[in-house]
Amino acid sequence: MEAPVERTRIRRLPDKAVHDRAALHAVLDAGMVAHVAFVHDGQPFAIPVAYARDGESVLFHGSTGSRLFRLLATGVPCCLTVTLLDGLILARSAFEASMRYRSAMVLGACAPVTEKTEALRAVAEHLMPGRWEVIRPPSAKELAATSVLRLPLDEWSLKVSDGWPEATPEDEGWSPPTGVIPIRTELGELIPGEVT
Amino acid sequence: MEAPVERTRIRRLPDKAVHDRAALHAVLDAGMVAHVAFVHDGQPFAIPVAYARDGESVLFHGSTGSRLFRLLATGVPCCLTVTLLDGLILARSAFEASMRYRSAMVLGACAPVTEKTEALRAVAEHLMPGRWEVIRPPSAKELAATSVLRLPLDEWSLKVSDGWPEATPEDEGWSPPTGVIPIRTELGELIPGEVT
Repeated sequence: MEAPVERTRIRRLPDKAVHDRAALHAVLDAGMVAHVAFVHDGQPFAIPVAYARDGESVLFHGSTGSRLFRLLATGVPCCLTVTLLDGLILARSAFEASMRYRSAMVLGACAPVTEKTEALRAVAEHLMPGRWEVIRPPSAKELAATSVLRLPLDEWSLKVSDGWPEATPEDEGWSPPTGVIPIRTELGELIPGEVT
Repeated sequence: MEAPVERTRIRRLPDKAVHDRAALHAVLDAGMVAHVAFVHDGQPFAIPVAYARDGESVLFHGSTGSRLFRLLATGVPCCLTVTLLDGLILARSAFEASMRYRSAMVLGACAPVTEKTEALRAVAEHLMPGRWEVIRPPSAKELAATSVLRLPLDEWSLKVSDGWPEATPEDEGWSPPTGVIPIRTELGELIPGEVT
């Protein structure tokens, strides 16, 4: 258990806040996409990235040709959020309807990674375990075209909603089916093919 | 087809840019969670929200007790992104490995919705079609505790990756299985239950 710092202290529904670093790791390890927020010319952006957790940081990559990646590499403030949807919570009232979810938010600044090959391997292995062993590793030219960033897990919050719908006294007389509809994300079988 | 404005013109992989408003609607209609980016005290945040498309805008809601929702309601610049993951693209090389995805990004400023009940119905019906007819509608007290925001679909971009892995001349001699592993998000059967 760790005390959250003020900026990431969860004020809304604080009973949903989880301060266990192992739980944070588990959410980051289970996700496939993160949304990275940052500001460019006064406009906030949220862009999706593939990522991997590497110990106490998150790695993600993009093109060195991307303005936004070049900006992130300078260490501007950013926020990386990974949200897993686990279910729909069907209550008797509209107000109590909600979702089961796990959402990890990391605040900080990115730094460029120089050991790019190892970092790219981590991201590939996160999404496609075992795949790195059988594919052609990046060439020097490909590495030069790739920006890899590291965001440390220093300032973070984790919010977990895993409960059941709640009935209120006002619900008396309303009796729709209630409970939880699970949401599952699954990988199918490989559809072979490529463009040569 | 519409010409994108400069801020949302897709520079990286511009062949993946889609300018068809019907395609934007389809992505927003298929998603279950959006990430909203905004800036608070110089720090960008990306928070997950349930939402619905309502014609040419997106609606989402939160608690009037939330500092972040109160900030968004003042019309600060924000970005709402919905990303759907459709598949893993397995190429012969690490560099060509990627994902099939559809990502819609909307820039703008939110405005508070006064017709809250209709907006909440839209969000509920987006996630749980038909549900609104059988549940207790929000009371005046519940509505007062709920902030509903509207973000118009004025400035937006849509990026779609739906291709196959590509082989490069350097891949000669590498022959791992290649193709696409589909990613599917599915709803299960209702698990009955509630807390009273």
